[in-house]
Amino acid sequence: MAEQVSNKQVIMKDYVSGFPDESYMSITISTLTLPLKLPFSGNGVLLKNLYLSCDPYMINRMRKPHASSYVDSFQPGSPISGYGVAKVLDSGDPNFKEGDLVWGITGWEEYSIINATQALFKIRHTDVPLSYYTGLLGMPGMTAYVGFHEICSPQKGERVFISAASGAVGQLVGQFAKLLGCYVVGSAGSKEKVDLLKKKFGFDEAFNYKEEPDLDAALKRYFPEGIDIYFENVGGKTLDAVLLNMRINGRIAVCGMISQYNLEKPEGVHNLMNLIVKRIRMQGFIVTDHYNLYPKFLELVLPYLRQGKIEYVEDIIEGLENAPSALIGLFTGRNVGKQVVVVSRE
Amino acid sequence: MAEQVSNKQVIMKDYVSGFPDESYMSITISTLTLPLKLPFSGNGVLLKNLYLSCDPYMINRMRKPHASSYVDSFQPGSPISGYGVAKVLDSGDPNFKEGDLVWGITGWEEYSIINATQALFKIRHTDVPLSYYTGLLGMPGMTAYVGFHEICSPQKGERVFISAASGAVGQLVGQFAKLLGCYVVGSAGSKEKVDLLKKKFGFDEAFNYKEEPDLDAALKRYFPEGIDIYFENVGGKTLDAVLLNMRINGRIAVCGMISQYNLEKPEGVHNLMNLIVKRIRMQGFIVTDHYNLYPKFLELVLPYLRQGKIEYVEDIIEGLENAPSALIGLFTGRNVGKQVVVVSRE
Repeated sequence: MAEQVSNKQVIMKDYVSGFPDESYMSITISTLTLPLKLPFSGNGVLLKNLYLSCDPYMINRMRKPHASSYVDSFQPGSPISGYGVAKVLDSGDPNFKEGDLVWGITGWEEYSIINATQALFKIRHTDVPLSYYTGLLGMPGMTAYVGFHEICSPQKGERVFISAASGAVGQLVGQFAKLLGCYVVGSAGSKEKVDLLKKKFGFDEAFNYKEEPDLDAALKRYFPEGIDIYFENVGGKTLDAVLLNMRINGRIAVCGMISQYNLEKPEGVHNLMNLIVKRIRMQGFIVTDHYNLYPKFLELVLPYLRQGKIEYVEDIIEGLENAPSALIGLFTGRNVGKQVVVVSRE
Repeated sequence: MAEQVSNKQVIMKDYVSGFPDESYMSITISTLTLPLKLPFSGNGVLLKNLYLSCDPYMINRMRKPHASSYVDSFQPGSPISGYGVAKVLDSGDPNFKEGDLVWGITGWEEYSIINATQALFKIRHTDVPLSYYTGLLGMPGMTAYVGFHEICSPQKGERVFISAASGAVGQLVGQFAKLLGCYVVGSAGSKEKVDLLKKKFGFDEAFNYKEEPDLDAALKRYFPEGIDIYFENVGGKTLDAVLLNMRINGRIAVCGMISQYNLEKPEGVHNLMNLIVKRIRMQGFIVTDHYNLYPKFLELVLPYLRQGKIEYVEDIIEGLENAPSALIGLFTGRNVGKQVVVVSRE
């Protein structure tokens, strides 16, 4: 029995130029006939979207294709896509069946037909909040794990600095570092976030970078003996100050540079001579290259989560219609913790 | 029988500020009584200096001690020191005896008493020009070897770019890369140097950066498919242009940034987002950390040299009194090939 259902969607109207705002997106309603019968176009899946993830990298997909983008741009006039958690309503892919829960790349809409099923992971553990698969147990969690454990080669007792530390990735890097026995300091952009870092996530220290006119002095205060590991989320002036404070044989995992994404021209970084002086390894990475490690990652993190050894904070907004403002809020630092949009709770 | 000999010395008169020139150095004559009898002050050696090496890093020793220097500053009023080749006249160190030839850190003078004998290597192969131990077979050779083979993890067929490519280090990196089967392009600052790279050192291509108003375009011309490995000797604008042209999983060995050493404030580097986009590993190093590899290095390079598979060009100036202008010439790019000063030929 065919049933007509409405499918609310978040459409990118045009490529973003300059600082993004909600006006680049609109909410539209299309219709979909259920149940869709196979084949769709080959062997895709029909998903009912439950939770959507707002991630900083998405701004790069909202801009015109350009040389320094590592992801395809969205199509103006089409729904935005991104990480999410969804339920499989029907499947033409033998790896998925009706009723499966998945996380991975889906559309910013109520229902999505996804042909790129290789970007979907089946959710096998449901004793934890499903929304966590947009964060702790999904791409941001893997990003923290790969960037810290694989890229930084951390050792017990090392001194770790994390920028944008209360975000989805930063909060986890800090906790992984604490679990390993490191000294951990984070920077964030409000008193509320700083309190969260110290009181909830167990960072040794944290500071509000907006209240530090001299970042170099702030870092010298918290790292009188220098920084062994810097987890880079912001770029620009912060990176320049960090370079002055790195220790010999230091490592910098370059995960993101959110302070630079919306500038006409990125800021200049002046202190790269320290790479030589301090024998620093600075390494960029993209988590999708490392998804083969996902099972190993879950083995590490699920027990921590179940034993209460990892705290995780989400900033949850209800309703797909509020997704555009949630996404834009990332770039003004409005969110506290991982920004999630609830499309549907089941 | 005591004999009074004069000892010509190159003294650093004062710390260099701004661009260096010869006026910061003076030639003085002190006297020394030979033969010196043991103990000097413990277990040093008395050296007769033969060849002195002019190396770009030395400018950092001529400046006031500062945070981003990785070597001690010279003492105003004292002789400059640096790498050289010397003959042992007398020794209080059981590892050295009269008549030994050594390379390592010595003074810019005719005779030196060196207590830091751990910075001296005994020369065991004398079928090659002795002056080569200031370059190909000494610190610059080791720098090229470590930076390329150890830091860059090169593979046959990869695309390699080298800046300051005709210098002591660059000419060797290019030849190591060619011997491994890489595609190699170098930049240098004159037609003569470019010719040397192509005709003498066997680079696939070379260009004069001074004649390229758009370095990005120049790199795109020589690397239409991008750069796998960049051996960084200059920094600044060159690094920025290279970052735009790196390939995925590229590596940058940061050996030096000669274009930045004499600037009031280093130039800003704007394209570091490419570290993420291209998953680049950028790693600084200092050769002295890797001197344990010297025997392995000699095993590789001596056969190449004897078989004529490695070319090596020196720019030789006669006489210690000409050492100051030879050193300053490094920073104006006057030298062609490794800059050596002959103090004495035996």
